[in-house]
Amino acid sequence: MNDVSDVALPHVVIIGGGFAGLWAARALSDAPVRITMLDRGNHHLFQPLLYQVATAGLSAPDIAAPLRQILRRQENVTVLMEEVDAIDPAARRVTLTDGRHIDFDYALLATGATHAYFGHDEWAEHAPGLKSLDDALDIRRRILSAFERAEATDDLDERKALLTFAIVGGGPTGVELAGTMAEIARHTLNGEFRHIDPAHSQVMLLEAGPRVLSSFDPDLSEKARLQLEHLGVEVLTGTPVASIDGKGVQVGERHIPARTVLWAAGVAASPLARTLGVPLDRAGRVSVESDLAVPGHPHVFVAGDLASVQSDGRPVPGVAPAAKQMGRHVADTIRARLAGQPATHFRYRDFGNLATIGRMAAVVQVGRWKLSGALAWWFWLWAHVFFLIGFRNRLVVMLNWTWAYWTYQRAARIILGKDPEAGR
Amino acid sequence: MNDVSDVALPHVVIIGGGFAGLWAARALSDAPVRITMLDRGNHHLFQPLLYQVATAGLSAPDIAAPLRQILRRQENVTVLMEEVDAIDPAARRVTLTDGRHIDFDYALLATGATHAYFGHDEWAEHAPGLKSLDDALDIRRRILSAFERAEATDDLDERKALLTFAIVGGGPTGVELAGTMAEIARHTLNGEFRHIDPAHSQVMLLEAGPRVLSSFDPDLSEKARLQLEHLGVEVLTGTPVASIDGKGVQVGERHIPARTVLWAAGVAASPLARTLGVPLDRAGRVSVESDLAVPGHPHVFVAGDLASVQSDGRPVPGVAPAAKQMGRHVADTIRARLAGQPATHFRYRDFGNLATIGRMAAVVQVGRWKLSGALAWWFWLWAHVFFLIGFRNRLVVMLNWTWAYWTYQRAARIILGKDPEAGR
Repeated sequence: MNDVSDVALPHVVIIGGGFAGLWAARALSDAPVRITMLDRGNHHLFQPLLYQVATAGLSAPDIAAPLRQILRRQENVTVLMEEVDAIDPAARRVTLTDGRHIDFDYALLATGATHAYFGHDEWAEHAPGLKSLDDALDIRRRILSAFERAEATDDLDERKALLTFAIVGGGPTGVELAGTMAEIARHTLNGEFRHIDPAHSQVMLLEAGPRVLSSFDPDLSEKARLQLEHLGVEVLTGTPVASIDGKGVQVGERHIPARTVLWAAGVAASPLARTLGVPLDRAGRVSVESDLAVPGHPHVFVAGDLASVQSDGRPVPGVAPAAKQMGRHVADTIRARLAGQPATHFRYRDFGNLATIGRMAAVVQVGRWKLSGALAWWFWLWAHVFFLIGFRNRLVVMLNWTWAYWTYQRAARIILGKDPEAGR
Repeated sequence: MNDVSDVALPHVVIIGGGFAGLWAARALSDAPVRITMLDRGNHHLFQPLLYQVATAGLSAPDIAAPLRQILRRQENVTVLMEEVDAIDPAARRVTLTDGRHIDFDYALLATGATHAYFGHDEWAEHAPGLKSLDDALDIRRRILSAFERAEATDDLDERKALLTFAIVGGGPTGVELAGTMAEIARHTLNGEFRHIDPAHSQVMLLEAGPRVLSSFDPDLSEKARLQLEHLGVEVLTGTPVASIDGKGVQVGERHIPARTVLWAAGVAASPLARTLGVPLDRAGRVSVESDLAVPGHPHVFVAGDLASVQSDGRPVPGVAPAAKQMGRHVADTIRARLAGQPATHFRYRDFGNLATIGRMAAVVQVGRWKLSGALAWWFWLWAHVFFLIGFRNRLVVMLNWTWAYWTYQRAARIILGKDPEAGR
């Protein structure tokens, strides 16, 4: 047994095993510290492919790996599946939800973001968001069950509402979900039903702002819209949602009857940030110092989606590469402090912006270099599979995608868990 | 749209998309009937590999496929995801749980078995059984969470109880679970924990009768026991369980503290059989006529684990090959009835008995021909992968197993869903 808690080395507590937390832990592998990695789940999740689990293309284990398996050879890390209730940066103490404490010398808070309903939490049960594997399986169940119920009902209005899928939010996740939904309806389910034609389903993407994928240049947004429409998605921009209930979505004067509504519109920072006792920005994120430390608490850092920081005068986006870079920077800062050296400013290195839309449809922007369509899709595909953790996962994902590509079949069309509306 | 319900052909309703129901539907592909296949799930499940999902070796979608995808080309079948509440064999009517009715000319009831706790339903929450994918994911969560909690606790008694896994029932499922659990503890998790050594876990197989795998000859039972012990399982025979609670298992005077107890001891027929209004055997199964019809109701059939029938003077076992043969026989009988020909007796063709125990450990009995150890394991592996539905599934399962074989890693070690005891 290698009980790192016995060693008299500085104790680094990392909260959250996402990109920021995991990359920080790895970058500290040969540092003179003992690390405790806390996560409420047992796995690191490759979030960029989460929409594929939601849309039945991949299995949950294809895009996740146990944190302790990833870190097994790094002997200075102890992984604990625990949920954190609060962090006291002055006392340098973390409190777990069961009341136990863990003291630290340095802490990294990297618990990311969750979905936010802009003060309308009552929408949550009707319009699930996509952040965890459980969210993805919930969405998968709703999508597949809607087609099953449409086949079973004789009520034509109900059938139409069951075959209407409204996705709220035209960012990368909303675009991915809408494009894939359209492919499922038009191709995957073709010929499998006797009373309905899934190709007559309506997939609607509702965006409050003037264009989809607003983090890209306007011409790429326009190309994304055209690609979505080509796949069969109805794209509505400038349509903020007024309300969502079990019957559908209200946009302005128009009510869209839709039994399946998916939420890809708002994210809010993890509520753990509030326990730090420092000012937060409007999205609930911690405005950190340039070395990613919490203002007034140089031993406590925030990285990933939970951190609000500027680089070269521009806000760092909430994407995986930024989270990894921040994680590594925190590791460097801790190392520097231990060596009595000054900390450096975090600088975000922007490798470009990618968004996938559907089969052979994507947009890519790297500086002034832009790409859309099939070539962009291949670029996106290889970039994502390459970054998946684990050789086996890469192989399985490629196999599933090759299969899906040639057959239009999706490998994971299995409804798991109880349908909350099964009683109807 | 091909609405088979409009066609004026005899209507065959098949309840349950397991081996019996699916094989019956396929065998009726060119018969002059219209078929409605009802299942409360959306998938056919390859039950023989369910223990691999429970023990994190395979993903749920690896061993399941949507019923409507399997049957997409068979135009005389409508698949509906519906739960059946009752069957009235005299009125030839099926009632769904939402109150709607479906009338039939012929019906096949093939809803199989569920786990039974011999009148101790209060054991269910502490000792889950393994029949569905949701059961498997629940068991997976319990097993993986037990190791996580053992790592996190400082209470040595609690840690020992968390690292004790008791499997109740020494039939094929109990043996598979125990053997695989031992492999996980000894090999898969090796080196991943800092406070515990998973290899010190205790895996116990508790069998009430005098030997494990009692459907095999005694010498093979003995070989199975030796192989289990070699893998690190403690096999206790002649030890009926007196009680199970959240603390552990009571066997005779002995209390075994175990936080994870799995139930593989008893099955009971699906409760739908009770609605037929005919006498049932002790296990709740329907004692059918020799043509598999319900006594007094020649238009209603029972097949698979729910049917009690003799062949050559011996009871037909509740195994997948028997269910497939019964399903096909019911199809033949319906065909004969429609043609005005006499029905034939069902005869079970016994292809032998296989049980897997763990890595390179299995027993096989085909008539007088017996095999155990590595060769039996290879035989079992190929037989099972060969019978998996779908080329993709076979490929993915082989890939996962090849990976697992060389690395001892299991591909699906992801905890999904809320842990019911997460609050502790």
